[in-house]
Amino acid sequence: MASVSIDEAMRRAIGLAARGLGTTSPNPVVGCVLLDPAGEVVGEGFHAYAGGPHAEIVALAQAGERARGGTAVVTLEPCNHTGRTGPCTSALIQAGVARVVLAVTDPNPVAAGGAATLRAAGIEVVTGVRADEAEAGNIAWLHAVRHGRPFVIWKYAATLDGRSAAADGTSMWITSEAARTDVHALRATVDAVVVGVGTVLADDPRLTARNLRDGSLAIRQPLRVVVDSAGRTPVGARVRDGAARTWVATAAEVGADPDGRVDLTALLDLLHARGVRAVLLEGGPQLAGAFLAAGLVDRVIGYLAPKLLGAGPAALGDAGVWTIGDVIDLDITDVTRVGPDLRITGLPRSRKG
Amino acid sequence: MASVSIDEAMRRAIGLAARGLGTTSPNPVVGCVLLDPAGEVVGEGFHAYAGGPHAEIVALAQAGERARGGTAVVTLEPCNHTGRTGPCTSALIQAGVARVVLAVTDPNPVAAGGAATLRAAGIEVVTGVRADEAEAGNIAWLHAVRHGRPFVIWKYAATLDGRSAAADGTSMWITSEAARTDVHALRATVDAVVVGVGTVLADDPRLTARNLRDGSLAIRQPLRVVVDSAGRTPVGARVRDGAARTWVATAAEVGADPDGRVDLTALLDLLHARGVRAVLLEGGPQLAGAFLAAGLVDRVIGYLAPKLLGAGPAALGDAGVWTIGDVIDLDITDVTRVGPDLRITGLPRSRKG
Repeated sequence: MASVSIDEAMRRAIGLAARGLGTTSPNPVVGCVLLDPAGEVVGEGFHAYAGGPHAEIVALAQAGERARGGTAVVTLEPCNHTGRTGPCTSALIQAGVARVVLAVTDPNPVAAGGAATLRAAGIEVVTGVRADEAEAGNIAWLHAVRHGRPFVIWKYAATLDGRSAAADGTSMWITSEAARTDVHALRATVDAVVVGVGTVLADDPRLTARNLRDGSLAIRQPLRVVVDSAGRTPVGARVRDGAARTWVATAAEVGADPDGRVDLTALLDLLHARGVRAVLLEGGPQLAGAFLAAGLVDRVIGYLAPKLLGAGPAALGDAGVWTIGDVIDLDITDVTRVGPDLRITGLPRSRKG
Repeated sequence: MASVSIDEAMRRAIGLAARGLGTTSPNPVVGCVLLDPAGEVVGEGFHAYAGGPHAEIVALAQAGERARGGTAVVTLEPCNHTGRTGPCTSALIQAGVARVVLAVTDPNPVAAGGAATLRAAGIEVVTGVRADEAEAGNIAWLHAVRHGRPFVIWKYAATLDGRSAAADGTSMWITSEAARTDVHALRATVDAVVVGVGTVLADDPRLTARNLRDGSLAIRQPLRVVVDSAGRTPVGARVRDGAARTWVATAAEVGADPDGRVDLTALLDLLHARGVRAVLLEGGPQLAGAFLAAGLVDRVIGYLAPKLLGAGPAALGDAGVWTIGDVIDLDITDVTRVGPDLRITGLPRSRKG
């Protein structure tokens, strides 16, 4: 195999890490590429699921003796503690690796200190290679460690005039099959999908991650969460079928806000305690507005269909904005055509005032 | 000057033609590049205003004797009739041009037949070079000739959730200065700007094409049209100032639809009779909905700001769509970032049923 540069190795490691998205929570995604002293790739690995081997361990097992004197290129600072598996720092030291190149330093106080341990063992440690890219790939986990609550992605679908259904309530389909397939792929990368009970009553969605063509389910399914203050989710709702776990989160269980509705901060705290790091909020408009008003949305993904309705329910309800000066500004990070539709991704700016 | 290919000459001619946009109605925009027998550019021209010299005449005047034996590359079939100016076919024949290359055939029965006249005079005529591009550049005029009514562009500005103002009615500014500058440039390319009286009462807009930085007016201003069924436009409205011509179109003058509102087809007929070929419809939501419901919108340009409101008036009102099957589909032709905003251009598909 030809030798690769450190930068290229990190690019590969980040790609490997992404393969764990949706299955590693509450752990981060991590990828590792091992190079021998000549720069040849001798091992690759990623962290696939919590409790399973870490990326470094997988790569070291592949490399065997060829790791000695080589370089471990890893997307996150190797862990320094014994959790469900032993510390990666020990494994790297024992394998005789000469250098560790990492992208992002571990902000988790329990696991941190890996770089110092490696340096104390005489291993050269380089940090910050492709750090922004690696950070973006681990955004939900990093956000959860830093803020103590899950990363919330609000996804909506609407016409170019902001409607999520026609005047008579029909909405199948506003967006194309390509966009809906994209949403199912997105669901497979998160730990929980959250909707309001209004959406369950109106659309009776399954909320599973599945193949739209043949209906087959993804191997791992996110937790389905219905925000249902008064416990109105029907016994026979599809969201209660056996295809995935479901949590009907009532105000009685979670706690209520002053209006008697489910307290959203408490909801996220409980989800975090359950190991949820990435949440996909799928509506409806009232729940999305409440999350936005509370400053609890970390990313917005809008699927805009090239259609006009002129009437019908809006994609977004009351978000606590009364006047234009209080508008919720987004920094757009991506605009992509998905089939005939547009997918617009943005990050809400910190609210003014 | 280096010689250029026919294709390159047509590209230049189309660019020249575009410089006439907004000032040639009821005439088309036309550009012409004259090449001598060696392929060198010896004359260029465009039609700048109705009553002014045609593109071919400007280019021939520049070229003088150097046009003899050369090629005239022109975006539209040279006219064959004497209107406010003499027929271009005669001028080309007299100049001794050996070949005429044109993009689009003239669909106007009054002026057509130019190619046949040229061929009868022994001139080689080539048609269809960069025809799609030239057609797109002349879309309003071609549409008006073919359909007997002006080409209508509906422009709107909204947040990503389809709101054109906040709940309290404030809307300055939803879109960025870059987007608003783009709109003023757009106004300068059309013959009339149309709004409903509701917009006049709510926002008191000037509706002029101007430089946003210093307020200076474009040399030529589109006709300002207020669709005002009951004649409610205030005497002191800005739209009545002296900066441009204004027509307050009442139901009494234009004719009324069954609901007593201005009949939009009759309105467009009257505008066409006044020489208007391109109309920019700027709102508000009710008027836009009525135009869309009547199938009278030929192009949609939406400026979407990366903002969310969650409340406030929608950018589009009732467009005659009750159920999802009747949704108005657009073919998106362009998506461009304009400052922080997105400009989405689409063509409504023929309505179903």
